[in-house]
Amino acid sequence: MIVYGDMQSGNCLKVKLLLSLLNIEHQWMHINILEKETHTDEFLALNPNGKIPTVVLDDQRVLCESNAILGYFAEGTDFLPTDTYQKAKVYEWLFFEQYSHEPYIAVARFIQKYQGMPSERLDEYHSLQAGGHKALRIMEQQLSKSAFLVGDTLTIADIALYAYTHVADEGGFNLENYPNIARWIQSIASLEGYVGMS
Amino acid sequence: MIVYGDMQSGNCLKVKLLLSLLNIEHQWMHINILEKETHTDEFLALNPNGKIPTVVLDDQRVLCESNAILGYFAEGTDFLPTDTYQKAKVYEWLFFEQYSHEPYIAVARFIQKYQGMPSERLDEYHSLQAGGHKALRIMEQQLSKSAFLVGDTLTIADIALYAYTHVADEGGFNLENYPNIARWIQSIASLEGYVGMS
Repeated sequence: MIVYGDMQSGNCLKVKLLLSLLNIEHQWMHINILEKETHTDEFLALNPNGKIPTVVLDDQRVLCESNAILGYFAEGTDFLPTDTYQKAKVYEWLFFEQYSHEPYIAVARFIQKYQGMPSERLDEYHSLQAGGHKALRIMEQQLSKSAFLVGDTLTIADIALYAYTHVADEGGFNLENYPNIARWIQSIASLEGYVGMS
Repeated sequence: MIVYGDMQSGNCLKVKLLLSLLNIEHQWMHINILEKETHTDEFLALNPNGKIPTVVLDDQRVLCESNAILGYFAEGTDFLPTDTYQKAKVYEWLFFEQYSHEPYIAVARFIQKYQGMPSERLDEYHSLQAGGHKALRIMEQQLSKSAFLVGDTLTIADIALYAYTHVADEGGFNLENYPNIARWIQSIASLEGYVGMS
């Protein structure tokens, strides 16, 4: 199995972290987004949307979208509940992550960390702060009621949200006012098999 | 069961359409987004993210995020495959919809249809066209290879993507150059139990 990704990307880290926690062997192929390696004809043949992570399974079937990949590998493990409602709550957080969290926190981080705050994106950068803090408040509220986002055990909801939350400061989001998020980040970072960005 | 929604919202239509196809009884509570009815204390107690659709099940448990709601009701039906890979492909399209389709096509439609093209959003409106057409091209490519987005039968991937695609013209997206999307829209609109926006 080959995973195309970049360990500085939260979306890619999600997959790396779950595969590591599950001890699933794979080959990691580094893809440089800034060099537009996701836009070559060869890559677009794998994923017409030109995004990483992209997984090519041993039988050559392809899977895209970080959170769909998480669902695929988590099926049948402790990281995805079997109860229909609990499973739907996990997916609720996964969709929340892609629509209400990543477009604010990951994009602000990209502008700050990778683009070095170019003047033409400063207005956008500042406009992303409110949405990012709204997402963090919603997470903080849930994590004040349960150890993890869905109940008392780690699921792929936590892995998905951890990815960009634990580096939110790189997008200008100070986590000091989110004590339950800080506690939750610590508990994930201390898991056996943990891997971080590198 | 109560579904809070607005039948002009594609995200809400998804849920209404699946419930209708599955013949699941429910009470529909109309919520007016423009009147900020998703931002009352009462509504935020149900869904801290202040979004519709939001479902309150008979036992008072709450479920949010349109595509997670689709997954919940589709479980165990023909609309969600049981094979792990096929199911992951359905979720791949659901995440594609929320990240690479809805933020372009639904937002352009909102600016054109509900806001009447205010001058301060014209630049944004025009900037959304490329991303929307990219999403449509990716759908067209898949639908030239299979009758539905995942294989030869309708799944919740089709229901989710249908919602804003069939009204994409209201956001300035001409579907004339997407013959397979047009064929697919027709086949969904002619399903027994079909409901459209109203």
